[in-house]
Amino acid sequence: MNQLAQSKEPFEDLGFGSKDFEGIDRLIHKNGQFNVKKKGMPWFRTYDAYHRLISMSWIKFILLVCVSYSVINLIFAAAYVFIGIEELSVTRSNLKWENLYEAFFFSSQTITAVGYGRVNPTGFWSGLVSSVESLLGLMVFALITGLIYGRFSRPHARILYSEHAIVAPYQEINALMFRVANKRSSELIEVEAKLVYTYYDPDHKKRIYKNLKLERNKVDFLPLTWTIVHPLDENSPLQGTNEEEFLRQNGEFLILLKGFDDSFSQEVYTRSSYKNKEVKWGRKFKIAYQGQKDGTLALWMDSLHDSEEVPLNG
Amino acid sequence: MNQLAQSKEPFEDLGFGSKDFEGIDRLIHKNGQFNVKKKGMPWFRTYDAYHRLISMSWIKFILLVCVSYSVINLIFAAAYVFIGIEELSVTRSNLKWENLYEAFFFSSQTITAVGYGRVNPTGFWSGLVSSVESLLGLMVFALITGLIYGRFSRPHARILYSEHAIVAPYQEINALMFRVANKRSSELIEVEAKLVYTYYDPDHKKRIYKNLKLERNKVDFLPLTWTIVHPLDENSPLQGTNEEEFLRQNGEFLILLKGFDDSFSQEVYTRSSYKNKEVKWGRKFKIAYQGQKDGTLALWMDSLHDSEEVPLNG
Amino acid sequence: MNQLAQSKEPFEDLGFGSKDFEGIDRLIHKNGQFNVKKKGMPWFRTYDAYHRLISMSWIKFILLVCVSYSVINLIFAAAYVFIGIEELSVTRSNLKWENLYEAFFFSSQTITAVGYGRVNPTGFWSGLVSSVESLLGLMVFALITGLIYGRFSRPHARILYSEHAIVAPYQEINALMFRVANKRSSELIEVEAKLVYTYYDPDHKKRIYKNLKLERNKVDFLPLTWTIVHPLDENSPLQGTNEEEFLRQNGEFLILLKGFDDSFSQEVYTRSSYKNKEVKWGRKFKIAYQGQKDGTLALWMDSLHDSEEVPLNG
Amino acid sequence: MNQLAQSKEPFEDLGFGSKDFEGIDRLIHKNGQFNVKKKGMPWFRTYDAYHRLISMSWIKFILLVCVSYSVINLIFAAAYVFIGIEELSVTRSNLKWENLYEAFFFSSQTITAVGYGRVNPTGFWSGLVSSVESLLGLMVFALITGLIYGRFSRPHARILYSEHAIVAPYQEINALMFRVANKRSSELIEVEAKLVYTYYDPDHKKRIYKNLKLERNKVDFLPLTWTIVHPLDENSPLQGTNEEEFLRQNGEFLILLKGFDDSFSQEVYTRSSYKNKEVKWGRKFKIAYQGQKDGTLALWMDSLHDSEEVPLNG
Repeated sequence: MNQLAQSKEPFEDLGFGSKDFEGIDRLIHKNGQFNVKKKGMPWFRTYDAYHRLISMSWIKFILLVCVSYSVINLIFAAAYVFIGIEELSVTRSNLKWENLYEAFFFSSQTITAVGYGRVNPTGFWSGLVSSVESLLGLMVFALITGLIYGRFSRPHARILYSEHAIVAPYQEINALMFRVANKRSSELIEVEAKLVYTYYDPDHKKRIYKNLKLERNKVDFLPLTWTIVHPLDENSPLQGTNEEEFLRQNGEFLILLKGFDDSFSQEVYTRSSYKNKEVKWGRKFKIAYQGQKDGTLALWMDSLHDSEEVPLNG
Repeated sequence: MNQLAQSKEPFEDLGFGSKDFEGIDRLIHKNGQFNVKKKGMPWFRTYDAYHRLISMSWIKFILLVCVSYSVINLIFAAAYVFIGIEELSVTRSNLKWENLYEAFFFSSQTITAVGYGRVNPTGFWSGLVSSVESLLGLMVFALITGLIYGRFSRPHARILYSEHAIVAPYQEINALMFRVANKRSSELIEVEAKLVYTYYDPDHKKRIYKNLKLERNKVDFLPLTWTIVHPLDENSPLQGTNEEEFLRQNGEFLILLKGFDDSFSQEVYTRSSYKNKEVKWGRKFKIAYQGQKDGTLALWMDSLHDSEEVPLNG
Repeated sequence: MNQLAQSKEPFEDLGFGSKDFEGIDRLIHKNGQFNVKKKGMPWFRTYDAYHRLISMSWIKFILLVCVSYSVINLIFAAAYVFIGIEELSVTRSNLKWENLYEAFFFSSQTITAVGYGRVNPTGFWSGLVSSVESLLGLMVFALITGLIYGRFSRPHARILYSEHAIVAPYQEINALMFRVANKRSSELIEVEAKLVYTYYDPDHKKRIYKNLKLERNKVDFLPLTWTIVHPLDENSPLQGTNEEEFLRQNGEFLILLKGFDDSFSQEVYTRSSYKNKEVKWGRKFKIAYQGQKDGTLALWMDSLHDSEEVPLNG
Repeated sequence: MNQLAQSKEPFEDLGFGSKDFEGIDRLIHKNGQFNVKKKGMPWFRTYDAYHRLISMSWIKFILLVCVSYSVINLIFAAAYVFIGIEELSVTRSNLKWENLYEAFFFSSQTITAVGYGRVNPTGFWSGLVSSVESLLGLMVFALITGLIYGRFSRPHARILYSEHAIVAPYQEINALMFRVANKRSSELIEVEAKLVYTYYDPDHKKRIYKNLKLERNKVDFLPLTWTIVHPLDENSPLQGTNEEEFLRQNGEFLILLKGFDDSFSQEVYTRSSYKNKEVKWGRKFKIAYQGQKDGTLALWMDSLHDSEEVPLNG
């Protein structure tokens, strides 16, 4: 709509740009992350806290919760000891350690709202501090609770990509193919694919991007496997290349998939890439599903990567 | 956009593919699930846990919660007994059973944060374990809380499909029809339908898919019933078929509906299918709604399936 | 796309259909609800519970919570009295009433997890029942908590429609107009309007629907007011009508608006309607906003309805 | 679709309208808010409460929570004192202050469900009030909990706009440019831009809006920077303007960006604007990213604003 009239060709660089890219190994990691590091930003960015907390590993997340829990309790325990442990209806022990752990556990009983009550605030200051702590506890656990469920229910696609892309015979010519399947039990609906080939052109010191035409770029759903096919015909920038040249070019196939996930009721996006060396020539995929005697279809997920040798056309 | 120039006809298989489908009874169950079983995946997949927990029946879900609650409490009860029941300010009983159930109930009071306090930790180790347990409790119930509400508020359409599809006279020809209505009180907006006919062709050992043209494939909303009509005209792959041939072909009509649900404020999708034997010839649907004396429209949901005999055209 | 080739005209009935509509007062209420009652469905539908609980008034909702809370507590109180009030470490009173209210408050302290502990379970059966009750409490309050926030944060548009539509001079002809503004402080983005005119044709016993062309059917955002204009030109089904005929036709203007709400980050839909008698002829809207001395724009929401008399064209 | 046939030109005012705009400083603030104040609405609007609570600053929000917590506790404390402090199993003190703070802390222990139990209701009325308070506490904290997480996880884009727009040489002509990058670590997908130029025309007493054509108005993702370019060619309303005239016109460039955020799994929108005086002539942006030795790309966010002097074409 806002397209410039005199623009001769559509932009195909996906948003990466083409300058100053010498020596970049790959643009997108196999897991879909961009090979980019942002620098020059403040160490702590509140607007990034959500992203970090929602995408860190579960182990790190639980560790972070436990450490924060301990630190907060220690701070409040110190406060209670400072106010005076006798205000907590506890007989002051001669051992500092015992006073501290009573205060620590009292703090943890307050922040989690367990509140057994053997240890409990009897004076004004301990009453005030514990009243503040229980409010703080509710607010902190609001965040933690939300994050735990948010992490658990976060909608993102789990697409299994075949380990390698292949070049296989296709009609009278050959085609580049790879295969995907949905690892989740949920259904993916209206799945669309986009495939871009990119390599660094040392002669012009420029990164080149080529949108690759697909035999089919959309399926209504993805209950089985989907073989995404780019025919190496006269429209393909790879037509006429042989395996050797192809490897020498050291390019990268960027893949974007999007679909609607039926469990999450949301649009999900996934990315991946194959480097040229991850493309096998002269192979074809074996079918990974079969009709069963009970009238159902069985799909073997671990067979997604299976291919067999085959002579190429041309 | 990415469509291959030389592709002669659009793909109509919806993502199922056409090879190796002999002996498959139906592709989509009446409830919308695909007739596919995924195999060769690890027994427990964390990325599938959400889908399983959100889509299992309520009875199973509540059972699972109760069993987990009991098991966790038993484990902690064992820990408290091991530490020594006297640390819980409880007089040790000579009966093992009594010690155990006191520890079990103390554990349950800790994990739910009730914390009555008659039984309460008085030593370091019981203090530590109960402090961990109350944190664990908050985190576990964060998940359960989220899942309960997530299950309850999960957006998915509840469309009532007429029990049978019918072949009815339509203008000067006949048409295949079925009828849908929204079982929920919420409004469905911008509802779109897609209808695909599929059967197995034993001569070519191939599954055939045909996109069926609809008289109308979109309504702005669905306050009443919507009769989805495929006219059996010269564009229809079913033109000229009679009932006998039709039954022999043993095909399947695949239906996809999508719309925007006004309560959930989200896009919802629904699927269903009719096997050829679920299509009745020479019937027409009775109107299921009527203007009332108070100026409102009444819709009888249980009349959605009602049809009456009628002679066909041609 | 799936459009039938031989269909002469697009469907304009929005999904209502045109048969059997005699005597229907209006199709859409001013608040956007359809004038439809669904019958023949079971009294309680689990799949409708969410919609009912999320859309009932706050007063009804809070009343429902309080009643449920009391009933559940009464049931558990009865259980504790049945087990024996002495198991709750309470001295049995001779007064039945006192025993009951102690049990009732103990139950409420258990279900909300307050658990003061003066009254607390000392035996096996009271321990078991209170352990179950505290689990139930967490699950029930999971639902209530979710619903309270879900109700509060439910995305739906709050559009103020001008009380009346008007017929005003427009260029060399006249036009039907009404005005909308966003009652919320949040921003509405990419707002689209659709206007349909419907009336009952007694000669053909049919309801007629006409899509009305708008001068403009989309705005990028809605910071001020938007006057939606249907010019009464040669394309309009209302061209040449005078006020008298117009009133006699007793039709209804159905309005659909959709947009993206920036606070909720979601698509929102709204509906309304004007009956012909709610259209005033020969008036024009007064401007409801003005530049202020401090360089800001002020919008008077209560002036949205204000119009003044004006002679019509033609 | 509903476009009026005789409309000569598309509307470009984005929804602002063009009348009565004299003396308005800017339409959109740099942070994206509209320069509009809504008046004539009731002071408290329940339908606006969510928006206000979700978009106020964290400091204000936490203050509001603390104040509400104190006020509610004070009210209940007064109720407990009124009922009689001895009902709370506390020895009545001669000091009013001591009675009050015991009641206050008891109330806070009830509303947060800590319930230590030293102070606890022993009579009917204190039992009833505390039973109501604990229910109220659960409901109030349901809202607060939801709001805290809702605020934290609220999807909205954090786009860094270059401090100034520039006019730089572009091919054989010049172009207006500005640069954006994503401040978050999350990925933005399918990012679209729209640029509108607006100024007040004192001769016709009208605000003028012009949609500016962009060299490129969409990127597939935004891992690095995106320079948005409006060429000053024969289609541009700014062609032929020199810096002096440009400044005198005192116009404003309105920017709309939208994209899909991969962490939030939702569409996000952002707005900003440049006044003419914020446009620097005869400068070009320095590249802000560079390939690193480890094969990754580094992006310096703080270099986004960096430009250097350059002679213009023409």
